[in-house]
Amino acid sequence: MELFAVDGLPEVRPGDDVGELVAERVDLREGDVVCVSHSIVSKAEGRGADLDEFDPDPRARAIAERIGELAGEEKDPRFAQAVLEESAELLTEEPLMLAVTRFGHISVNAGIDRSNVPGSDLLLLPEDPSASAERISATLDAPVVVTDTSGRPFRQGQRGVALGWAGLPAARDWRGESDRDGRELGVTVEAVVDELAAAANLLTGEGDDGLPVVVIRDFEFGDHEPHDGLFRSPEGDYVRDALREWEYDKQRLRENSE
Amino acid sequence: MELFAVDGLPEVRPGDDVGELVAERVDLREGDVVCVSHSIVSKAEGRGADLDEFDPDPRARAIAERIGELAGEEKDPRFAQAVLEESAELLTEEPLMLAVTRFGHISVNAGIDRSNVPGSDLLLLPEDPSASAERISATLDAPVVVTDTSGRPFRQGQRGVALGWAGLPAARDWRGESDRDGRELGVTVEAVVDELAAAANLLTGEGDDGLPVVVIRDFEFGDHEPHDGLFRSPEGDYVRDALREWEYDKQRLRENSE
Repeated sequence: MELFAVDGLPEVRPGDDVGELVAERVDLREGDVVCVSHSIVSKAEGRGADLDEFDPDPRARAIAERIGELAGEEKDPRFAQAVLEESAELLTEEPLMLAVTRFGHISVNAGIDRSNVPGSDLLLLPEDPSASAERISATLDAPVVVTDTSGRPFRQGQRGVALGWAGLPAARDWRGESDRDGRELGVTVEAVVDELAAAANLLTGEGDDGLPVVVIRDFEFGDHEPHDGLFRSPEGDYVRDALREWEYDKQRLRENSE
Repeated sequence: MELFAVDGLPEVRPGDDVGELVAERVDLREGDVVCVSHSIVSKAEGRGADLDEFDPDPRARAIAERIGELAGEEKDPRFAQAVLEESAELLTEEPLMLAVTRFGHISVNAGIDRSNVPGSDLLLLPEDPSASAERISATLDAPVVVTDTSGRPFRQGQRGVALGWAGLPAARDWRGESDRDGRELGVTVEAVVDELAAAANLLTGEGDDGLPVVVIRDFEFGDHEPHDGLFRSPEGDYVRDALREWEYDKQRLRENSE
């Protein structure tokens, strides 16, 4: 398996066809998976936004104030409003806005980015990254993963993750398979698209040398059952439930003290 | 960057030298990172164990009973005892034993594996995976990452993660670097060893064709500050704190109802 970044991509602008920009710069072949950083997908889809477009409601103002107090610096309520508008639900309001996006991805600030967006304050995630991947995949006639970098509980640092995918399943399902000794395997579902996104992120870079497209050559899904869940609330994701309860308790405490 | 699995490794036994087994089968060169599945490291370090070695104390019995009730099937209190003995702390006791291992990794059941261990019931994680990586790295004269597959909150499926590393930093520190437009970058620390482990896991396999060693060739760390935190409780990991509070509340509820 080989990974290489696609060179020479221009600064992407609203209306650009990401699939065509890639197709012009690389000869893809059977077995290639194309990992595309959401930043250029979002730019092409016109998801740049200005803070002035967001008129903070009382909830956004209250959240920005509480986060600001905890952080010891003023927070812009318009940004909090943007996060609220991009979210289906907030798991926590502070110390961070941990948001469930409408397509199911959980990310601080709903994945809204402030950097690397010429001419606008914010860059929102694509509205439906799997639909974006589908379009790019159709142009390239190759599997596509739309990626982001994000933090995670329990471990420091960020890593590449998949936001959307097309042309390949999200995961390998090992259930029913057995190891060398004939015992059933402990690992049941392997989130392949997240592993591809993490691998691509090793080459992507974030800075001056930003390389938003990485080709993974000779990837083999192998002879496993496909599995397409990635965001659906997994059975046993009690961490999500625990956070909801924790948040609920905090809100009640706050109401009682008011 | 290229990835390939090392072929022809024998079934590893206690006392085997993993570094030598790898060195005999692959010509490493500058720029290679060797990812080694913890399973063969644990086997070589004699970390197989039998359930009979664990004498369940009252806490282990109570946890096994509660998990068993929730799961609708009997759970072995000896297994709960093994998890307790391998843990510095349990973040939650049920529905799953979410353990902080002594070396700081957070994993369900302290990463204890039941499958793929000929002649013993359990396979424990290495006691100090970074020390293991250090030894293998010294033999191979190459950077080494000791890996596992594990689940995570919020997303379905497992993915490769790093348990220990040697010969390379855990992360790239992007702080102070700027993007094409001169704005400071949103991503500050990139957990490179986790991304390498995830990439390797795409090739590793878990079943009959288990390939526990993957070489990542021509990996470039690049011109970034190194950062060696991965497990230390990161500032802002309030998910961990929230789980502790949730667990504490559950225990109080239980005590009050008794």
